[in-house]
Amino acid sequence: MFERNTELHQIMSFIVETDKLKNVLRQTLLTDRSRQENSAEHSWHLALLAMLTNQYANEPKLNIAKVIQMLLVHDIVEIDAGDTFAYDAVRNLDKEVREQAAAERIFSLLPASRQAECYALWREFEEQLTPEAKYANALDRLHPVLLNVQSKGAAWMKHQVTEKQVLERLKVIEQGSAALWEYAQELVSYAVEQGYLEKGE
Amino acid sequence: MFERNTELHQIMSFIVETDKLKNVLRQTLLTDRSRQENSAEHSWHLALLAMLTNQYANEPKLNIAKVIQMLLVHDIVEIDAGDTFAYDAVRNLDKEVREQAAAERIFSLLPASRQAECYALWREFEEQLTPEAKYANALDRLHPVLLNVQSKGAAWMKHQVTEKQVLERLKVIEQGSAALWEYAQELVSYAVEQGYLEKGE
Repeated sequence: MFERNTELHQIMSFIVETDKLKNVLRQTLLTDRSRQENSAEHSWHLALLAMLTNQYANEPKLNIAKVIQMLLVHDIVEIDAGDTFAYDAVRNLDKEVREQAAAERIFSLLPASRQAECYALWREFEEQLTPEAKYANALDRLHPVLLNVQSKGAAWMKHQVTEKQVLERLKVIEQGSAALWEYAQELVSYAVEQGYLEKGE
Repeated sequence: MFERNTELHQIMSFIVETDKLKNVLRQTLLTDRSRQENSAEHSWHLALLAMLTNQYANEPKLNIAKVIQMLLVHDIVEIDAGDTFAYDAVRNLDKEVREQAAAERIFSLLPASRQAECYALWREFEEQLTPEAKYANALDRLHPVLLNVQSKGAAWMKHQVTEKQVLERLKVIEQGSAALWEYAQELVSYAVEQGYLEKGE
C-alpha cells in the first residue's frame, strides 16, 4: 500500500474507498436497458441535472453549488448500506440505522474539517429541510422516472410497482420545485398510457 | 416518445441523451480490477475530488464551483467521439475534430443559454488557460494514476506504458497544483518500485 501521513493522502484514500460506489447497483436500468445503473454514475447525472435546472427550483435564491455538492456525496453511504429500493418496505425499516453507521465509517477517512463538511451535507440532504436539500431530493426522485420511461418501465414492471406508489413517492418533488412536480406527473401519466406502469393502486 | 415543447423538456432530453456516457469505457480499471471505468462515474469521482481538494490549487481564489461544473461536462463529447486513450498516438491525431463535432451536436439539444454555458465550460477545460481549467485538468490527469496504482498497474501493463510516458503526461498537473504534482510523482515512483509501471523510457 502507498502510505503518506498527510491530509492530502487522507483525501486520496477516501477517493480510493469511494471507488466502491461504482459497484453499488440501483434498480433503475440505463435508458438502453443494457444494465442496471450504479450509484456513482447516478450521482454524476443528478449533479449535471442540478446544474442545468436551478431556475426551476421554488426558491429563487437557491445555492446551486451546494445542491451539486450534496448530490455528489448523497449516496456514498450505500458503499456499506447498499442501495435500498424505494418500494422495498422491509429493507426500508432499518435503512436509517445502516446509513448512519456507514456515514460515520466512510466520512471518518477524511481529515476532520472535510469529514464534518461531508457529514453535514449528507445529513442536510436526508433531513430535507433547507431549500437546497428539498431541491436535491426533488431531482433524486425525478431522475429514475425519466430513466424508467425511457427503458419502457423495465424496473417498474419487474417489481410490479403501481402508479399510486410512484406518485406517492414523487409527491415530495413539489417541496423543491412546482415545475418539476408538474413534469413528473406528466411523465407518470404518459407511462401509464403506454403500459409501462400499472394504473391505479 | 414523450414530447413537450418546453425548455425544461429540452433539458430532460439532454439528460436522456447523456445517459450514453455511462456506456463509454475508459482504459482505467476500477480499484478492484472488476471492470473498466466508464466516463460518467469517472466524472462523478473527479467532481468529488475537486470539492475536497480546492485548498491544494495554486490559485488561492479558485472558483471551485466552476471547476466542478467543468468536470461534470468535460467528457460528454465522448458520447460521439469515444474515449481516446492518452497513449494512443494515432487516435489522438483527429481527437480535436471528433470532439468539436460532438460538442456541437450534443450541447445543441439544450436551450440556447444552457448550450452556450456548457460549450463554454467544455472549451475552457480544453484550452487549459484559466486557473479553474488548469486545476480541473490536473485532477483529470491525477485520478487515473490513483486508480492504476490501486489496480496494480493493470491498464499500464496491458498497454506497456512506461514511467517516462506517464510523467510526460502528468507534467501539466504542476500548472494547476504544485502539491498534487508532488503527490503524483510519489505515486509514480511507488508504482515503478512495485513493478506496476515500466521504469525509464
